Amino acid sequence: MSEIANTPEPPYYAVIFTSERSDGDNGYGEMAEEMVRLAAAQPGFLGVESAREGVGITVSYWESLEAIHNWKQNERHMIAQQKGMSEWYLRYKTRVCKVERDYGFGRG
Amino acid sequence: MSEIANTPEPPYYAVIFTSERSDGDNGYGEMAEEMVRLAAAQPGFLGVESAREGVGITVSYWESLEAIHNWKQNERHMIAQQKGMSEWYLRYKTRVCKVERDYGFGRG
Repeated sequence: MSEIANTPEPPYYAVIFTSERSDGDNGYGEMAEEMVRLAAAQPGFLGVESAREGVGITVSYWESLEAIHNWKQNERHMIAQQKGMSEWYLRYKTRVCKVERDYGFGRG
Repeated sequence: MSEIANTPEPPYYAVIFTSERSDGDNGYGEMAEEMVRLAAAQPGFLGVESAREGVGITVSYWESLEAIHNWKQNERHMIAQQKGMSEWYLRYKTRVCKVERDYGFGRG
């Protein structure tokens, strides 16, 4: 289960990936887990948050645009992106953002 | 149920709100629906995406930082923010971002 990512002081970068799945698993669950493991091992990775309820929203956080670019070019990730279009998603949107400001709240 | 937001060409702004709920509804569901309606009526609102699965992620999209600021100062929204801290959330993080680039995929 996802938690709130423990990111450093801004500025840093966020990739918002919003998707609608097609029916059936077709290897999606296994690949999704592998992608989270692989992303977390990339240079410049800061954290990830994810939830699906009808639509799926995954936000990954990165130190730089270069780190995002390198992750997009990762060989296993490129295979996953291809399978995403051919099998797992009906549609998706990816937004690359600069986080300019953040604030939070927590009890206890 | 949330859908992928139909946003214009970048640049525009995103507010990523990631939260962990406390137990019980305590008026949360009703207020959450009101906030979505109210936000959608604000000047500069572009769209919203939302999912909860353990963690909740709501991303709202805006034309400008001024539009985000005005929404944060909305009277009903300020009451909701207060109740969020006192009742509905164990913790949350809000990130204000500039969307620099986006791309997508859709079938048919």
